[in-house]
Amino acid sequence: MTETGRQLVPVILCGGAGTRLWPMSRDDLPKQFLPLAGPWSLLQSTLLRFGDATRYRRPVVVAGETQRFLVAEQVRQIESKATVVLEPLARGTAPAIAAVALILAESDAETLMLVLPSDHVIGDEATFHAKIDAAIGAAVDGRLVTFSIVPTRPETGYGYIRHGDGLAGHEGVFAVSEFVEKPDAQRAQEFLAGGRYFWNSGMFLFSAATLVAELERFAPDIVAAARRAVAASATDPDFTRLDAESFAAAPSLSIDKALMEKTPHAVTLPCAIGWSDVGSWAELWTIGTKDANGNVVVGEVIADDARDCYLRGDEALVAAVGVQDLVVVATAGAVLVTSRQRSQDVRTIAERLRGRG
Amino acid sequence: MTETGRQLVPVILCGGAGTRLWPMSRDDLPKQFLPLAGPWSLLQSTLLRFGDATRYRRPVVVAGETQRFLVAEQVRQIESKATVVLEPLARGTAPAIAAVALILAESDAETLMLVLPSDHVIGDEATFHAKIDAAIGAAVDGRLVTFSIVPTRPETGYGYIRHGDGLAGHEGVFAVSEFVEKPDAQRAQEFLAGGRYFWNSGMFLFSAATLVAELERFAPDIVAAARRAVAASATDPDFTRLDAESFAAAPSLSIDKALMEKTPHAVTLPCAIGWSDVGSWAELWTIGTKDANGNVVVGEVIADDARDCYLRGDEALVAAVGVQDLVVVATAGAVLVTSRQRSQDVRTIAERLRGRG
Repeated sequence: MTETGRQLVPVILCGGAGTRLWPMSRDDLPKQFLPLAGPWSLLQSTLLRFGDATRYRRPVVVAGETQRFLVAEQVRQIESKATVVLEPLARGTAPAIAAVALILAESDAETLMLVLPSDHVIGDEATFHAKIDAAIGAAVDGRLVTFSIVPTRPETGYGYIRHGDGLAGHEGVFAVSEFVEKPDAQRAQEFLAGGRYFWNSGMFLFSAATLVAELERFAPDIVAAARRAVAASATDPDFTRLDAESFAAAPSLSIDKALMEKTPHAVTLPCAIGWSDVGSWAELWTIGTKDANGNVVVGEVIADDARDCYLRGDEALVAAVGVQDLVVVATAGAVLVTSRQRSQDVRTIAERLRGRG
Repeated sequence: MTETGRQLVPVILCGGAGTRLWPMSRDDLPKQFLPLAGPWSLLQSTLLRFGDATRYRRPVVVAGETQRFLVAEQVRQIESKATVVLEPLARGTAPAIAAVALILAESDAETLMLVLPSDHVIGDEATFHAKIDAAIGAAVDGRLVTFSIVPTRPETGYGYIRHGDGLAGHEGVFAVSEFVEKPDAQRAQEFLAGGRYFWNSGMFLFSAATLVAELERFAPDIVAAARRAVAASATDPDFTRLDAESFAAAPSLSIDKALMEKTPHAVTLPCAIGWSDVGSWAELWTIGTKDANGNVVVGEVIADDARDCYLRGDEALVAAVGVQDLVVVATAGAVLVTSRQRSQDVRTIAERLRGRG
């Protein structure tokens, strides 16, 4: 049990797609299914992170219909159990979270939902669990807690949360003063220096009842569509399938847009937990374990006088000779070679390839 | 016909092995069989270079037993004809050349043999043909002509020939003053500046009679073994197979060591013909056709802000983003990434892999 005696339900959002980790991530195999940081996939690592049954209840994984077997197999591989809720189509995070809240509320509306992306890395899990403990009181009190991240660089690729006053009786929890869109480089530098801006990580804690009540207020059509999709859902031993026609009626919105930016009950708990959204190969170099020459080496690799490189051979041998600051990722059919500074630009390559088919 | 009215027999030595172009060249697929500089393999390009039947007679290709089908298939692909003489085992170039000389001498001892490696590139073929014409007189006069190469850089990886006096009556042909082993960097610089040292290319012109006579004098055991190997050879529609036991008795020696460094009849004809021994990937960049960004691109490649790179995707797509001065060579199973300056060091990688098996 957590220190407050409440068990939480991890709600793991697995519907994301992405192209920034091409050639490994592809449309039909997004990064949460890949073993990018350790022996297990990011999804599996997320499940294992919340595997302590004394603290966390059986997790719910929300995934796209077409990825149901991939999810189920990855859950099976780690000998875990999860309730897999299938979205018949992608409508953003708000309808998905609403549907899970309604399902959980059927047995207990006070259930605390720990909402988590499936494709993040947490370097300091012990601190994260402690931060979660610290958030429970606020969630029980009817707040919607966003776990924000203490920034470590002037990142222009994330949204930020500016915190307001501390929440009385909840050490470390602050009112949300403002959600801020991705800043330009100068503002990002100011945010980093100012100390009142934190990265919006997309991780939340709230009760099913609070979530549904607040959504009823700020996005009633989402709750209505989710309610119908749950009522008409089909459950078999492996999957809970939301009703397609009902779910399609929900507007496609993120939980931030639909609710967090509007509700007066949003609060935030800044965390320094070694968080990474694994947004680029360079990021995997940053968080990876380095050899004596500063290389992060994964798979079949021969490094001869290579320095500060990310080298990955997946079904193909990579030989790197006399190079530095590179990212080299080889799969059986494709190879990426780029500088660490440019690895964000891989997205355009993946998009060009998609254009080609 | 050549300007002197003599037809030559190209004798193409195809027995070489090498590891400097890993991952494409491998023990069982040396570089002469690979399409490294154009649509045809280096062997095929060599055959096509001497395909003018008015100037050159049917070529002889000397190859290892195990590579006979590879050779025969490559000859067939270009709709060429060649006499393929098989070495039962590798004994260096001297026994191989001796055996071919003896075979050719059976019909005409005055046959002029143009001895050529199978794995070189000649950028300026017209000048090379002219240089060959210029060498014929000396060869007819009983000289052994080495085509040496006007050096373009202080190369430490080649042997050099120092030329002596001009040969009277043979414009451009010089006595050989000395064969020089691979120099250190300082001497190589002096050689380049001095203008009397040329690269030893391993390309020759001499008559079968001269070759046999001079070898009888300086390496009689080679001629004896070759003579027995030819006498006991077996010829079928596709191959002439030298007798293994006889051939094995020949000492293993290069034609330089066995003869050229000893005979007083060695002469040299310096050439500036865009010659390359394709000794490294960087060399293929140097001789290759570059795009607007200075990249040499072969096969499946996406280059996005890449500069002065050699990029090759062979059964694998290479995406190069924001990099420069690199060599990237991808095959289905292995990828090399190195700087152009370091591409010579690939040999050690190939040798480490051979150790692993």
